[in-house]
Amino acid sequence: MLNFDFYNPTQILFGKGRIADLNKVIPAEAHVLVLYGGGSIKQNGVFDEVMAALGTRTVTEFTGIEPNPSYETLMKAVELIKHNKIDFLLAVGGGSVIDGTKFIAAAALFDGEDPWAILEKRGSNVTQAMPFGSVLTLPATGSEMNNGGVVTRKSIKAKMAFSSRFCFPKFSVLDPTKTYTLPVRQIGNGAVDAFVHVMEQYMTYPVNSPVQDRFAEGLLKTLIEEGPKALATPEDYDVRANLMWCATMALNGLISTGVPQDWATHMIGHELTALHGLDHAQTLAIVLPSMLRVRKEAKRAKLLQYAERVWDLRTGDEDSRIDAAIARTQDFFEQMGVKTRLADYDLHAANIDPILSALETHRMVALGEKRDVTLDVSRQVLELSL
Amino acid sequence: MLNFDFYNPTQILFGKGRIADLNKVIPAEAHVLVLYGGGSIKQNGVFDEVMAALGTRTVTEFTGIEPNPSYETLMKAVELIKHNKIDFLLAVGGGSVIDGTKFIAAAALFDGEDPWAILEKRGSNVTQAMPFGSVLTLPATGSEMNNGGVVTRKSIKAKMAFSSRFCFPKFSVLDPTKTYTLPVRQIGNGAVDAFVHVMEQYMTYPVNSPVQDRFAEGLLKTLIEEGPKALATPEDYDVRANLMWCATMALNGLISTGVPQDWATHMIGHELTALHGLDHAQTLAIVLPSMLRVRKEAKRAKLLQYAERVWDLRTGDEDSRIDAAIARTQDFFEQMGVKTRLADYDLHAANIDPILSALETHRMVALGEKRDVTLDVSRQVLELSL
Repeated sequence: MLNFDFYNPTQILFGKGRIADLNKVIPAEAHVLVLYGGGSIKQNGVFDEVMAALGTRTVTEFTGIEPNPSYETLMKAVELIKHNKIDFLLAVGGGSVIDGTKFIAAAALFDGEDPWAILEKRGSNVTQAMPFGSVLTLPATGSEMNNGGVVTRKSIKAKMAFSSRFCFPKFSVLDPTKTYTLPVRQIGNGAVDAFVHVMEQYMTYPVNSPVQDRFAEGLLKTLIEEGPKALATPEDYDVRANLMWCATMALNGLISTGVPQDWATHMIGHELTALHGLDHAQTLAIVLPSMLRVRKEAKRAKLLQYAERVWDLRTGDEDSRIDAAIARTQDFFEQMGVKTRLADYDLHAANIDPILSALETHRMVALGEKRDVTLDVSRQVLELSL
Repeated sequence: MLNFDFYNPTQILFGKGRIADLNKVIPAEAHVLVLYGGGSIKQNGVFDEVMAALGTRTVTEFTGIEPNPSYETLMKAVELIKHNKIDFLLAVGGGSVIDGTKFIAAAALFDGEDPWAILEKRGSNVTQAMPFGSVLTLPATGSEMNNGGVVTRKSIKAKMAFSSRFCFPKFSVLDPTKTYTLPVRQIGNGAVDAFVHVMEQYMTYPVNSPVQDRFAEGLLKTLIEEGPKALATPEDYDVRANLMWCATMALNGLISTGVPQDWATHMIGHELTALHGLDHAQTLAIVLPSMLRVRKEAKRAKLLQYAERVWDLRTGDEDSRIDAAIARTQDFFEQMGVKTRLADYDLHAANIDPILSALETHRMVALGEKRDVTLDVSRQVLELSL
């Protein structure tokens, strides 16, 4: 096992009816800025429940945080905060709204001239942030219980990640019933996103970390079992609860303790979203299976463990077990309604060079757990995904 | 899944050489009270490393916190704090030292007349506590990453548990190399303690919580694999690291999220320690197997899952699989050097009535996940353990 630090002070309020408890966890005198995306929370009752829980607190709204939240949009919220006496931020939505709120919380108190520097420095220059919490409506990114976010600058088509010790939500409310009305596409994307988060922290090389491995395998197996049920029976409480808790556990720092991590799939995926507007999960579903095939030798020991423990593949020679495990992974993504080929999104061989150029521009030229995913390797991965 | 809250702000610094990082996590100007048990930390180098890390900070020592820390001893530390300007408490040791430090941290700032009230109210009357951290030397109780403790009042032979949101360590340093010199008995006890902690949160009835179940099963399987290796090869770093992380994860609130809990075994065990001085883990090893046998019907579904997933028992009828799983559990405790019969500790039928009287005095008359472990059931359990 590798040395590690673990720290995660976010309080989770999980279950039916927990939005009402916002009244307990937000200071009674706070002027609250409620941040959200489109209008879905006004249609499904979440907004009304939040407002009821906030009671007599002064509330200002900031709406329009888009999927892959943009720096341009988020800076409007920062301006709004600077011109109003806001004490507390409350993100109501999915990972994009929460990621965006993290950036806003840091940018509003940022010492430097231009908060874009937060993204250029990946958050290392953040020294404080406004207090914020979240009401999660979409299980997927894990942002509700971690300190990281991803922000897109539309003007330069750049999607940049940041994190900071100061950017943990104070609390997150997770009410699985609030996911019942989600579109099928968002449930499918969410399960794939959570699955790939686990894989980026698990599918590397063995370092004798059985607790972390079994936790990761437990999440993968649960996603495989519960994901299709979530599509088939949208109002099954336990299924939605299990999916939600998987997504949170997938990226809260727990399963990455003491183990190497990869994240090459995410980095390539980010460029696909920035250049072509694909959903984040779609990019992961395209890249991961090919990444596993191309890097089969480097990941052989873990792929065999994955085949046996997650997919119950115990017979046949090593390569056939590995190949079957990767094929099943890809089938699972398709089963969740997320297409796994570039061609499915009308992307073709001619689109690969610009993706590689973008990776080069963003210095993503030595990715993966051993920093050996060069641009050449990324090219192989993309070509295999055509 | 049941509704739940999860909150755990303790920072973990895990790995070789991490004691030096005390310098980063304790305020530079703090007057630090270093609390410990006997002299082992002075023999194995831990004390010297701690002092080196504390550098020029003012340090006062409090020594002599015993296994099953006593109210009488701990109140001496509270008096010492009241007569010196102490800013920060640093527990260096195992669960007893950390439990004791939690109580001291709360008692030193307690508003009421007599801090014994903290234990009478199980911590619900704690409104603040001094900041404290820990350097863990004995993987077992999980106290290094939770907010609870157990304190014994020798004068009335009472062992009382408390917890409070204010009693999380700010940080805990977990260096597996510091466990190399532990006596065999303490390693055996530690593995059994962690194992039974997991069982108390897992072995109840199903509530459709696959993530929590798989996390618990992962910890149990790892303890079964790594425990005997820790006895056989004391200086195997990964084995000690895995054991240490299991013990921390076993009782940090994670695996109990959204599931029913039992704790009857612990409550009966506490009386055995209070009346007869048995090690905590010894009492658990005596009580748990009989508890599972007596409560086989109430726990049937989970026992079958446990037999299959933890012990790989997949053939034979239900009862034979359950019986075999319980027998293997008992064998595991014996393999770890912890005896599992009352007679092994020179306790006999005549000792049972006083234990039941103590349970009654402490209002432990309706234990277990369904509150149906009456004094009669506890009697059956103890008789089966003779």
